[in-house]
Amino acid sequence: MKNFMDADFLLDTLMAKKLFHEFAENMPICDYHCHLNPKEIYENKAPENITQLWLSGDHYKWRAMRSCGVDEKYCTGNASDREKFQKFGYTLQYCIGNPLYHWAHIELQRYFGIDTPLNAKTADGIFDRANDAIKNGDFRPQSLIAKSNVKIVCTTDDPVDDLKYHKLLKNTDGFDCKVLPSFRPDKALNAHLEGFAEYIHQLGKVSGVDIKSYKDVIKALLRRADYFDSVGCKVSDQAFDYPPYLIADDDEIEDVFQRAMHGEKITSQDCDKYRTPVLLALGKKYYELGWAMEIHIGALRNNNTLMFEQIGPDTGFDSVDDCEIAKPLSKFLDALNRNRVLPKTILFNLNDKDNTVLATMLGNFQSAEAESKIQFGPAWWFLDTMDGMTNQMKTLGNLGVLGKFVGMETDSRSFTSYGRHEYFRRIMCALIGRWVEDGWYAYDEEILKEIVQGISYNNAIKYFDFD
Amino acid sequence: MKNFMDADFLLDTLMAKKLFHEFAENMPICDYHCHLNPKEIYENKAPENITQLWLSGDHYKWRAMRSCGVDEKYCTGNASDREKFQKFGYTLQYCIGNPLYHWAHIELQRYFGIDTPLNAKTADGIFDRANDAIKNGDFRPQSLIAKSNVKIVCTTDDPVDDLKYHKLLKNTDGFDCKVLPSFRPDKALNAHLEGFAEYIHQLGKVSGVDIKSYKDVIKALLRRADYFDSVGCKVSDQAFDYPPYLIADDDEIEDVFQRAMHGEKITSQDCDKYRTPVLLALGKKYYELGWAMEIHIGALRNNNTLMFEQIGPDTGFDSVDDCEIAKPLSKFLDALNRNRVLPKTILFNLNDKDNTVLATMLGNFQSAEAESKIQFGPAWWFLDTMDGMTNQMKTLGNLGVLGKFVGMETDSRSFTSYGRHEYFRRIMCALIGRWVEDGWYAYDEEILKEIVQGISYNNAIKYFDFD
Amino acid sequence: MKNFMDADFLLDTLMAKKLFHEFAENMPICDYHCHLNPKEIYENKAPENITQLWLSGDHYKWRAMRSCGVDEKYCTGNASDREKFQKFGYTLQYCIGNPLYHWAHIELQRYFGIDTPLNAKTADGIFDRANDAIKNGDFRPQSLIAKSNVKIVCTTDDPVDDLKYHKLLKNTDGFDCKVLPSFRPDKALNAHLEGFAEYIHQLGKVSGVDIKSYKDVIKALLRRADYFDSVGCKVSDQAFDYPPYLIADDDEIEDVFQRAMHGEKITSQDCDKYRTPVLLALGKKYYELGWAMEIHIGALRNNNTLMFEQIGPDTGFDSVDDCEIAKPLSKFLDALNRNRVLPKTILFNLNDKDNTVLATMLGNFQSAEAESKIQFGPAWWFLDTMDGMTNQMKTLGNLGVLGKFVGMETDSRSFTSYGRHEYFRRIMCALIGRWVEDGWYAYDEEILKEIVQGISYNNAIKYFDFD
Repeated sequence: MKNFMDADFLLDTLMAKKLFHEFAENMPICDYHCHLNPKEIYENKAPENITQLWLSGDHYKWRAMRSCGVDEKYCTGNASDREKFQKFGYTLQYCIGNPLYHWAHIELQRYFGIDTPLNAKTADGIFDRANDAIKNGDFRPQSLIAKSNVKIVCTTDDPVDDLKYHKLLKNTDGFDCKVLPSFRPDKALNAHLEGFAEYIHQLGKVSGVDIKSYKDVIKALLRRADYFDSVGCKVSDQAFDYPPYLIADDDEIEDVFQRAMHGEKITSQDCDKYRTPVLLALGKKYYELGWAMEIHIGALRNNNTLMFEQIGPDTGFDSVDDCEIAKPLSKFLDALNRNRVLPKTILFNLNDKDNTVLATMLGNFQSAEAESKIQFGPAWWFLDTMDGMTNQMKTLGNLGVLGKFVGMETDSRSFTSYGRHEYFRRIMCALIGRWVEDGWYAYDEEILKEIVQGISYNNAIKYFDFD
Repeated sequence: MKNFMDADFLLDTLMAKKLFHEFAENMPICDYHCHLNPKEIYENKAPENITQLWLSGDHYKWRAMRSCGVDEKYCTGNASDREKFQKFGYTLQYCIGNPLYHWAHIELQRYFGIDTPLNAKTADGIFDRANDAIKNGDFRPQSLIAKSNVKIVCTTDDPVDDLKYHKLLKNTDGFDCKVLPSFRPDKALNAHLEGFAEYIHQLGKVSGVDIKSYKDVIKALLRRADYFDSVGCKVSDQAFDYPPYLIADDDEIEDVFQRAMHGEKITSQDCDKYRTPVLLALGKKYYELGWAMEIHIGALRNNNTLMFEQIGPDTGFDSVDDCEIAKPLSKFLDALNRNRVLPKTILFNLNDKDNTVLATMLGNFQSAEAESKIQFGPAWWFLDTMDGMTNQMKTLGNLGVLGKFVGMETDSRSFTSYGRHEYFRRIMCALIGRWVEDGWYAYDEEILKEIVQGISYNNAIKYFDFD
Repeated sequence: MKNFMDADFLLDTLMAKKLFHEFAENMPICDYHCHLNPKEIYENKAPENITQLWLSGDHYKWRAMRSCGVDEKYCTGNASDREKFQKFGYTLQYCIGNPLYHWAHIELQRYFGIDTPLNAKTADGIFDRANDAIKNGDFRPQSLIAKSNVKIVCTTDDPVDDLKYHKLLKNTDGFDCKVLPSFRPDKALNAHLEGFAEYIHQLGKVSGVDIKSYKDVIKALLRRADYFDSVGCKVSDQAFDYPPYLIADDDEIEDVFQRAMHGEKITSQDCDKYRTPVLLALGKKYYELGWAMEIHIGALRNNNTLMFEQIGPDTGFDSVDDCEIAKPLSKFLDALNRNRVLPKTILFNLNDKDNTVLATMLGNFQSAEAESKIQFGPAWWFLDTMDGMTNQMKTLGNLGVLGKFVGMETDSRSFTSYGRHEYFRRIMCALIGRWVEDGWYAYDEEILKEIVQGISYNNAIKYFDFD
């Protein structure tokens, strides 16, 4: 029996150990997509205890606790921080095979120096030891980021955001991680959801555009993109349950837009008529700005109406959708490509049944403009597991060019989630190490070093043009 | 080379051997979903020979034989029992990688004491030896159930059934396995299939409800649910090719119902208008009774018209469907949950492309009412294979809480199919054992014992409230 | 660390080595589906250099190169052959986990006697050594085919083809490989694509049928099938993004056909009304001729309009579709089966999410007419990878009868692609060898030899009736 999660965790061949320890382990981190709050980074306050750090906003953990029959008061309710942590410890011991189990222990080891497995019996003691570590150490966001060797953080920001904290952080002494905004125009696209009209008014105000037609929305968004660009933005991000693509004539589009602005309920299909021209205009803009366009496909959100009404979105009541995506996605990318304005694009899927569709879609639109200009995004959210990451990399290896992969991002809201990069790198080195060990790929230290360091960090820096 | 299917079959680490032999192997069996015939259990007749036991009703075996080009007369036809068994032996040698191969040899070893691999050369001799064992041993259903250490059997029963044999079995001396009914209202739901009107008349008669509208159907079904409850029922079961959810107004629903009652051909979509309110009423009833609601999704039945006309349903001509299921399933569960009447629910999929959808759907509706109140059903029917079971458990591990899994049921029509519980437990212990052996999960004997015995038996007993 | 791709490449157990080296390695090859050009085989010209052999028509390689940011001029453009090979060498080093990497090295070893791993550093030297081998050896198509021990090649031919080269090859002295045509009527089926009317005119001319209605199309196709049969054809092939099945009345079908003949744009759904009766008539004909019907499902073609306009189809801009396929496929097969004219059928999927649907569809229509009359086609095109092949065989093993599998074909346009049969056999022997080694399948040399040689060659010869 191997030691529990020691220095060689997941590294099951000599080659895997070599690749990880010599090449991957000490590479910096480029976290090109996450949901960290720039205000929190700037204000740089230490957490009071490990429950605040771990359980105050992490819907992954709440979901697991609810799945063990833990009452909501220990998740988002008013139980004490010690009680909440105890319930989490209880939960974790049943989470065999779950990445939460590994993430939690990596974080306990790396940030708190605690090697004890967390379970119902040990939770109380670990709560005390972790809080001592917080009291006696430096757990402020900027320190955690620096300690994790993070060079780039791309947050996720709304086009109406003033990016005040990104600007302030640029001038923060002694903090040399770049915190850059990402442009996420989802609210401007979702004319079929509540709050659209209100949002569009706000967008008009912030951008200085008097929005009277859907074309004014485009105008406003392009202005905001320019503003984001001026603050260092390199990435846009859009999330869909399925990729919308429905060509309509101007009158139809305008009709949908006007109905939505008057608070009428729009069908998802009608909304696609509006989304399509807006997305095409945005894609062109991203191309002109040299940004990468991230597309996240396949979340089915807010499934539990009762809990949504109580505690709102992003609280652990989302799951995975299963729409057909190949044809509309192909048409959308082709429409941009035909006009020679297809930006660098990263395709993320939440349903692993789409792995093959996405990994082969890439190849339709590659070009000499970038190495793997169209990327297969790393295993994301529910797929961000050992099996999910391994499958994503095997699929990309089988169907694309793994050596040019831009690698991992956390998609996280937590300052100790950088352990997920380590987790990813261990899995990547285990996979590649096994192939070399078994004589499936020729051993050449120079080439392997380039590939492993590329996937760990260098490919992303080059791809996004972060230097 | 390891010995062929010996005591350590599938147990490929020391930890797997320990977990299986010390914790799992001797746990009783709770078979919470099967298709055993309660009349046969009650009448308790020994089979005449192994062909009757194995080949008289097992469409898995017939399919394999037909796939080897074996003529129908050796499957469901009038060839002699010896000839049929010879053809099955011939077939089995080509079934490399098929669970039939393992099930057959586990059953030969455990029930017949025969270790010889079955193939074309050995079939004749094994036929004789097996029949000697039957003649000289006790192969009556109650003995096979008792010998297999089965404590709970849930059969699958129609709401119109009088449950006579379940009642008789409750008072059978010397047989201490509980044989409980399950409530399967499929025929009352499928207004688009032939025989609906006739069935509804029967339901009205049995329940004492004069069925004139769809609301009377509901009334009748609720009465029958109460009756089933009085006989010890704890589980309902419904099977769909896709989860129906289509809200219509009362007039539309009534119109569909009336047309169906007049023998008109109803579309599947129209049928959904009728099924939706009936299912919602049933779900509420299950909640009130404290039952679990099983939902089996994804079978495409009776594909071969020619054979259907010759030998009817459930004879090996079903396969796997590939509909979109996420949205309607989410809406159906949410509709019950919004009204605080969502029962304990077990979601089964027949298409493994739906693993991720189901395993993430669970998390949307968990609550403190039960530990993993919404369960991901074990790999079922076509997926009840080594790969299928491993994938189901890995998926649940990745996306839910494997430690609270209610585990295996046979879904079988055979009295020697309990070897499938052993097969499942070996696979489960191999999976968990490997994780512990590799240092991916902390070794703690007490916790591992609780998890392994939980998944083997204890979780189901607690979940269904069988004690 | 094992040696790089040596004699035991992929063979990770003693049993795998035994099965491969003793039983599989030296079996002849039956390549029952490929895209070799019979004219090129007949004319039998040696290539000038390895770039011509490898890179003049291989869209797999172009896709990989484009994914590394290589400019089009090095793929299909006018760069020198040395430069193109250098760019391919550069590309290959990043193709870790890609079958191209293995295929290329198998071909270098077997046909060129070169053991050096190909990468950016070695490309130049390998270019020279490979070209020396070509100059000093015999790289003419017939020699490569003979050297590869290929006994049967089925090319892919249009019904209007005169099959001149197939006839000439039949009488070519000293070349004992049978080169047989396959009947691929796609152009006659795709009334919704450009060029349909023109094609139908050509079909009429070649078949001597004055085509005035869709029934005349059928008449013409059946005549051509008879002609193909007279030249030795045993296989038909049709490719769909989804299996079409839509029953319409004669007037509707004729209307669709007439509109298409007048150059009107037909929807894909309307086209299905026309395709359905044509396919049913063809299926019946195949049955009568004793042919096998191959159905390839799931390609999404010509996604990149810009490149399509520049360099046409089959140049590396296809990917994988994700339609629902279970119901229409079931209905199509059942329609033939109900009339007792379902031919031997091989179902191929390009989207691995359909593995379970296809592998269970087989079982619906098996019969005593052939051993595994309905076959699950080997992993194809994008799925023709180590993982894809392993999954296909595991799925078939789990859900059907692996021992009756007709095995591999190359689907290739290259005369050195026979290494893919070796690759397949290694993977098959690794899989089966592991099962035996682990005690999951009984060791019986006679049976294992039959299974392994069956899947390698014998099953296909028997199934297609090639002797």
